[in-house]
Amino acid sequence: MGDALRGGTPLLRALRLHVGLEDEDGVAIDGMGKLLRPSLVLFVAEELGAPMAKALPAAVGLELVHNFSLIHDDIQDQDRTRRGRPTVWARYGIAEAINAGDLMHAISTSVVLRAGSEAAAALAAATAEMIEGQSLDLAFERRAATVDEYLDMVDRKTGTLLRCAFELGGIVAGADAKVRGQLRILGRSVGRAFQIQDDLLGVWGNGDALGKPRGSDVGRRKKSFPVAAAFSHATAGDRARLEAIYASEPVSESDARWVIETMERLGARDEGAQKVREYLAEAEAGLEALPFSPQGKSEARALFGYLAGRER
Amino acid sequence: MGDALRGGTPLLRALRLHVGLEDEDGVAIDGMGKLLRPSLVLFVAEELGAPMAKALPAAVGLELVHNFSLIHDDIQDQDRTRRGRPTVWARYGIAEAINAGDLMHAISTSVVLRAGSEAAAALAAATAEMIEGQSLDLAFERRAATVDEYLDMVDRKTGTLLRCAFELGGIVAGADAKVRGQLRILGRSVGRAFQIQDDLLGVWGNGDALGKPRGSDVGRRKKSFPVAAAFSHATAGDRARLEAIYASEPVSESDARWVIETMERLGARDEGAQKVREYLAEAEAGLEALPFSPQGKSEARALFGYLAGRER
Repeated sequence: MGDALRGGTPLLRALRLHVGLEDEDGVAIDGMGKLLRPSLVLFVAEELGAPMAKALPAAVGLELVHNFSLIHDDIQDQDRTRRGRPTVWARYGIAEAINAGDLMHAISTSVVLRAGSEAAAALAAATAEMIEGQSLDLAFERRAATVDEYLDMVDRKTGTLLRCAFELGGIVAGADAKVRGQLRILGRSVGRAFQIQDDLLGVWGNGDALGKPRGSDVGRRKKSFPVAAAFSHATAGDRARLEAIYASEPVSESDARWVIETMERLGARDEGAQKVREYLAEAEAGLEALPFSPQGKSEARALFGYLAGRER
Repeated sequence: MGDALRGGTPLLRALRLHVGLEDEDGVAIDGMGKLLRPSLVLFVAEELGAPMAKALPAAVGLELVHNFSLIHDDIQDQDRTRRGRPTVWARYGIAEAINAGDLMHAISTSVVLRAGSEAAAALAAATAEMIEGQSLDLAFERRAATVDEYLDMVDRKTGTLLRCAFELGGIVAGADAKVRGQLRILGRSVGRAFQIQDDLLGVWGNGDALGKPRGSDVGRRKKSFPVAAAFSHATAGDRARLEAIYASEPVSESDARWVIETMERLGARDEGAQKVREYLAEAEAGLEALPFSPQGKSEARALFGYLAGRER
């Protein structure tokens, strides 16, 4: 990825800071994180016998799209730090951070084109869908989402790029339409299991949810799976209080504790865990149908289990 | 272009408002403006014998990139109206306007890919360069640019997409490397003549520059060719006063009048007009070398003359 972001302009330095290639002083660091999406592209591509020269630009292009969206997300969410480093807008201002995200988006297109126009078309379509998901997510800051609306939003905002990782692996390997369809369905199941688990961890992940309720996603008033589930099952009285809490800030310690207890009482936590198990089972069934090696299937199962159960 | 932006989501409605396909209530209107860049693509493509099925997606893709950059520019410049309609951020907020620009950028890639991966690669490269120009332009809000730095910025920010219009016309026509090189040089000359003329019109265009000095680009403290030229030729005393005026807002009526008079006295207006003539002559010479029809050349000369001399 370093090759794609080489250059001396201030904007390219901002991109290297964002992805963790350099620190604030331009010194090289190793902070690129898990690289989940490009790893999935390369894994699927290898299992399906794709040449590395096509798989790599697809993987890097996808990771660049993910990162451009994070640069713009951080502006929208007013987050000042990410992965222990200042976000681009916090460091360079909003105007320049808009440019930085736009530049990374353009570079992602240049890179993915080296994997062919079909890969580029799949990535552009996934990017458009991800942005629609981001727009839906913003809308849900103003009103409660049902569980189905929430799942639809998550499929777009988070799921699309995961799904695209599987799809790109198939495209660069020249897989047929049937396999590509299977990869898309698999990607959707994995994406949902991953995101719902992430949402559960965001509330209950530190093992001390009621001890530090304001440090959780509840304290940040983040709309997530357990919130959508709680709203769906709430009595009129609970619903009114939930709405009042999610409509004002900051969330007090006692309100945050009440929300967490109410989500548990309404079964949102159990429902989430059940959904994660369902989507994981779907993913494992989808995996069986794919022409992967036995070892590849075993590795994929381990990866899905990790994604659907990992600690924060 | 309507086809590319069809759909019922709020974000797509925002895009149709921006490009002038619909008004704020979603009613169809005819407000798309001059469509200069796509017209140039189609003109060059037709002169070089390209099939319409390839020329059209290249033209639309380019216009969508131009428009995505305007949506983000309007946030950065805090402009609340464009072409008599509210800008996307003024109507939907900054977060959603960032999404709107990002979505239009992604759609532009999907569209231009229908013209082939070479056209998509040229557009992605031009987009990246345009964004670097936008970043330079923001930097010049904080410090004075020399004439050369200004021309470099303009080549990137405004010139790149005009140059890309010529280049895309050549690409979709399958023109050889020599013709493409000639098209790029021609595009650069036209772009410079166009932008410097635009800058001159921004100060002296209404024919009553000293009567309404605050309504001009000087009142908005826009850094443009005459400003860069004036800074370059200023004495220490003039320079100090120019710097003080461009560092604070609002600009008073008398200060704006002094700036305009000073730019004239330092020869910035004449220098600009001279540059426009030079670049126009370059463009006409470049045009002669191209394998266009006699009628095509005549039309192109008329167009260049219009671009380099038009009223605002």
